[in-house]
Amino acid sequence: MAELGFGTRLQRAIADTSPLCVGLDPSAALLEQWGLPDTPGSLVIMGESVIEAALGQVAAIKPQVAYFERHGSQGLAALEHVLARCREAGLLSIADAKRGDIDATMTAYGQAWVGQGSALRADAVTVVPYLGLGAMESLFIRAEEQGAGIFCVVASSNVEGRAIQTAMTGNGSVEATLLADLGARNQRYVERSGESLGPYGAVIGATREAGTLALSTFGGCFLVPGFGAQGASASDVGSLFAGTATGSVLVNSARQILNRGPAVAELAAEIFRQAQVLRDALN
Amino acid sequence: MAELGFGTRLQRAIADTSPLCVGLDPSAALLEQWGLPDTPGSLVIMGESVIEAALGQVAAIKPQVAYFERHGSQGLAALEHVLARCREAGLLSIADAKRGDIDATMTAYGQAWVGQGSALRADAVTVVPYLGLGAMESLFIRAEEQGAGIFCVVASSNVEGRAIQTAMTGNGSVEATLLADLGARNQRYVERSGESLGPYGAVIGATREAGTLALSTFGGCFLVPGFGAQGASASDVGSLFAGTATGSVLVNSARQILNRGPAVAELAAEIFRQAQVLRDALN
Repeated sequence: MAELGFGTRLQRAIADTSPLCVGLDPSAALLEQWGLPDTPGSLVIMGESVIEAALGQVAAIKPQVAYFERHGSQGLAALEHVLARCREAGLLSIADAKRGDIDATMTAYGQAWVGQGSALRADAVTVVPYLGLGAMESLFIRAEEQGAGIFCVVASSNVEGRAIQTAMTGNGSVEATLLADLGARNQRYVERSGESLGPYGAVIGATREAGTLALSTFGGCFLVPGFGAQGASASDVGSLFAGTATGSVLVNSARQILNRGPAVAELAAEIFRQAQVLRDALN
Repeated sequence: MAELGFGTRLQRAIADTSPLCVGLDPSAALLEQWGLPDTPGSLVIMGESVIEAALGQVAAIKPQVAYFERHGSQGLAALEHVLARCREAGLLSIADAKRGDIDATMTAYGQAWVGQGSALRADAVTVVPYLGLGAMESLFIRAEEQGAGIFCVVASSNVEGRAIQTAMTGNGSVEATLLADLGARNQRYVERSGESLGPYGAVIGATREAGTLALSTFGGCFLVPGFGAQGASASDVGSLFAGTATGSVLVNSARQILNRGPAVAELAAEIFRQAQVLRDALN
């Protein structure tokens, strides 16, 4: 068992820095805007600039795996480099992979992304639950053992998934049952470990309304897309997560930061500005 | 626009060979059973043996991406090699990636897996719909343009996902609405192209019951896990897909074939046996 779980580590990072997470989304369009060719080497350059600008100002960095994967094995080599640099720098990393499969396949994804010996080791990885949380046990066990975190997409920031996420099971809406399942896992972890937050996080779009979602008793961290470019303000985020545990809300921002590159000073200034806005809104 | 879409190409491959798809699942346990070290090079060896054994006997091969991804960039390099070998050999490949995200991120996944210039080019890729089919348009457009296919997980073979998949939206169950949406996309494709099947496939576990799912009017192909090791028989598959279009059902089998390795002759013999059983059950 690692000394501290991911929930606690993220909570401390948020307290030490800010509730901001920088999304690392090196799309072809953004690389062009930075004056970089669309190559694996440019993925590394953008990653290193973002890490340099973000260090000490944000709680975590979230590379979107798809933008690396589009360069195949060489893109993943760039991602390995970026993730290793985060680790060296002491900056938490969240691999936004949205993996979701069953049983032995999830064991393999755990080997890919979670813990010691993983080629693509990140502090946390995102998952999608369409095949059921219960089918991901092997990944969850590995994450707990290794002090890593899981962020499960529960309520996405885009509208197209809402019909599925709000569909009704025999025990409430899909999103409510997922939140309850993850929350129960956090509760069991907290009871065993004596920590105050568990490693099971939920992705909740900033564009959502709390509605029937029991956010305040969740016992884990929230990863919040949809801030800034996607339309939600810091005060929207503050309202949505009112009453949740201190330091449990991590707000992702990508485009409105990355658009300011390639100069590290410009990136850092925008990160500083957004971090301050979020600190004010969430405290 | 490619000359023929994926649905038609798969239907022809099934007619020319069999409804069998060999799942390429190079887990650590299976590599050990084959007497191979758990290295990227062994992923290539297993892949080449399976391709050699399967060629001319099966309609497609389905590498499970997770087993390659656990070796990081080197694992994906092995997968690039295996996918290229399939293409050279004229064997259709389905990358079982179960990717699922939104908008520009799906564009990036398309760049990774679909069409000319993709590092990890496969003939089709699997997706999970938790964030909504409508959020994947950019991938779908690219797939149609490039003659590639999409297999969306609709009703999985495992039990843990059933609560979500059978939850009720305002328009019926989640799985029924997904099938209807994919079917409508196939219908539009068929009307435009004059082909008889569209490129939008559905993953339907062999362990399911047809129930309210409108399989016979779907207009695309089905990818069917759960056969063999996971418990469903060929006659279960035959019953489930009775009335669907000829050559639209592709049944995956992995463990019961790969367990027979590493000898190519043994793999080929088991593939021959299963292909015959499925031909009989589905004709």
